[in-house]
Amino acid sequence: MPTSSQSYPMSGGDDQHSYIHNSSYQKAGIDGVEEKTRQYILENLDLMNLNPNLSTFTIADFGCSIGPNTFHAVQNIIDTVKLKHLKENQENCLGPLEFQVCFNDQRNNDFNTLFRTQPSSSEREYFSVGVPGSFYGRVLPRNSVHIGHTSYTTHWLSKVPDNVCDKNSPAWNKNYIQCNDLIEEVTNAYKVQFKKDMKGFLEARAEELVPGGLMIALGQCLPDGVGLYETWQGIVKDIIGDCLMDMAKSGVTTEEKIELFNLPMYFPQFSELKEEIEQNGSFTIEMMETVSHSLETMQLTNDFITSMYRAILSTVVEEHFGADVVDELFDRLAKKLSKHPIDFEICKKQMVYYIVLKRK
Amino acid sequence: MPTSSQSYPMSGGDDQHSYIHNSSYQKAGIDGVEEKTRQYILENLDLMNLNPNLSTFTIADFGCSIGPNTFHAVQNIIDTVKLKHLKENQENCLGPLEFQVCFNDQRNNDFNTLFRTQPSSSEREYFSVGVPGSFYGRVLPRNSVHIGHTSYTTHWLSKVPDNVCDKNSPAWNKNYIQCNDLIEEVTNAYKVQFKKDMKGFLEARAEELVPGGLMIALGQCLPDGVGLYETWQGIVKDIIGDCLMDMAKSGVTTEEKIELFNLPMYFPQFSELKEEIEQNGSFTIEMMETVSHSLETMQLTNDFITSMYRAILSTVVEEHFGADVVDELFDRLAKKLSKHPIDFEICKKQMVYYIVLKRK
Repeated sequence: MPTSSQSYPMSGGDDQHSYIHNSSYQKAGIDGVEEKTRQYILENLDLMNLNPNLSTFTIADFGCSIGPNTFHAVQNIIDTVKLKHLKENQENCLGPLEFQVCFNDQRNNDFNTLFRTQPSSSEREYFSVGVPGSFYGRVLPRNSVHIGHTSYTTHWLSKVPDNVCDKNSPAWNKNYIQCNDLIEEVTNAYKVQFKKDMKGFLEARAEELVPGGLMIALGQCLPDGVGLYETWQGIVKDIIGDCLMDMAKSGVTTEEKIELFNLPMYFPQFSELKEEIEQNGSFTIEMMETVSHSLETMQLTNDFITSMYRAILSTVVEEHFGADVVDELFDRLAKKLSKHPIDFEICKKQMVYYIVLKRK
Repeated sequence: MPTSSQSYPMSGGDDQHSYIHNSSYQKAGIDGVEEKTRQYILENLDLMNLNPNLSTFTIADFGCSIGPNTFHAVQNIIDTVKLKHLKENQENCLGPLEFQVCFNDQRNNDFNTLFRTQPSSSEREYFSVGVPGSFYGRVLPRNSVHIGHTSYTTHWLSKVPDNVCDKNSPAWNKNYIQCNDLIEEVTNAYKVQFKKDMKGFLEARAEELVPGGLMIALGQCLPDGVGLYETWQGIVKDIIGDCLMDMAKSGVTTEEKIELFNLPMYFPQFSELKEEIEQNGSFTIEMMETVSHSLETMQLTNDFITSMYRAILSTVVEEHFGADVVDELFDRLAKKLSKHPIDFEICKKQMVYYIVLKRK
């Protein structure tokens, strides 16, 4: 039964199944809020107040994975801070600014690929460092980060709640492989873990950020009152669970193994997320809104869905079921989707949230 | 012909041929100066003067490779700074100190293995970051490092001098694969590159270190007047060159290919190294001495020598000759060594230097 802290990075390397080549959905989310980030920084970041003698501006991307999305996101922040620095410099006499970017992810993230694929040092206007470790704890020194960023990350919990794989618990998740919100006790068990993790995340960032520093977060949550099972994202993962059950029937895996498998993922409802942030008193909420996602209204192709979920889930599937299972599982997913395509029209929509917090 | 900047990290991963399992020679060097480092820091590091409000103490290991040596070296520094902090705290009111360690190496270094094999976050008393990039240029922000460390690194040049692979140049190195000091023009060409690189190294560190910060360097050089060809280390690499020539004769590679192959390594003489450091005016030389190496007086076994050079050279050999060549080359080296063992008695000795510089 999984009890200790878990770590399942996105699919590494840069082959056809890698996260690098299958993260355009997340990219669309990041692109959608670029302008908001730019505008907020230009209007509100106060470099003089942060530190009039500032010589290094430090940006951290928490849960950066292996690119390329992280490079886009931090470049947008750097470009904007540069512009802001230039403007403030006309009024005050600020020193020249160097940039450092801390790319954080789990220590088994593929940092080699991250470093290999990042812009070369001649194109880059920042010093790049890789920071291995779970963002649910401290990964950087106190007062060392000016802008923190995270996108599509905190729905990954630090662990699967203990009891959802326990047949004797009321929170047993049966043959489901995710918290799809169909069993109340399961949802509650996941909620407890989510609250604990979110608390850890915010407490760690509160220590790492300088006073006046910003934490920008982008991710997916559920509208209040909507269950994950009603969204296409929830449905796809339930279908993946069905595929595993089919594979158990044909002897590739076993039902017992599936019962012990649950995804360490939880999508909170909007108000629940807000509550967690408010409970941590170290930040002011500068912005917290839902934004549109350019791909949310489109009928995604089955290939796109299959490749995207393979890049996201292959590490966790491989860890539990072994490497042999991955190809067959996602082949079966593709087939099931082509036989019974998802009807995006009748699905309820997840929300994309965009949050800017300021360290008090 | 190799002209651009080159990067050949130590052999990655953790199999039998990896640097991890074949770096005990370098470890013996590091162990040999641990006490010196401890003593120097305790007697001379002035935390109050560095910054009375210091909350993060940053250590950088330049050219850290993949461990485990780097972890030993930085732990020794941290333990000592902690002790020093405790002592100074009895007189002054210093705040609590957090430690950050920047592990720097080329961007194709195996950082995944470094992060995987480092002490776990619960055992570690420091925040760990990986810093990809050549230490012959800037890799970290201005004024961000309190103690820099490097061991067995700067004999790796940023590139092979252009003309040593050029048949029409007086600095042509014929069938030798290293600067063994048998051809004066070759030595001069390497010397030029060494001076350029050392200048770059020191200028970059001068910017990165805080005033009062320390740069500790350990490595191998030659006593004045000794040529590399007279030392066992030089002889081994000349034998590797001979093995390549044998392989050309049996058609595994070609003489033309060997003529284009030279190791980007240069071992300066002691006075030459000193001159380079003195030319950069940013540091005071606090210590510069030669130290004994516990394995230097021992008759190393042929297996030890073969494995050590395989871990050091396999990346550069593979890059030029292809992966197929590596096994055969080092098999041949082992055979040649067992037929004609190195007579350590008659070899001249390299020197191990230990340097402490203080940023003015």
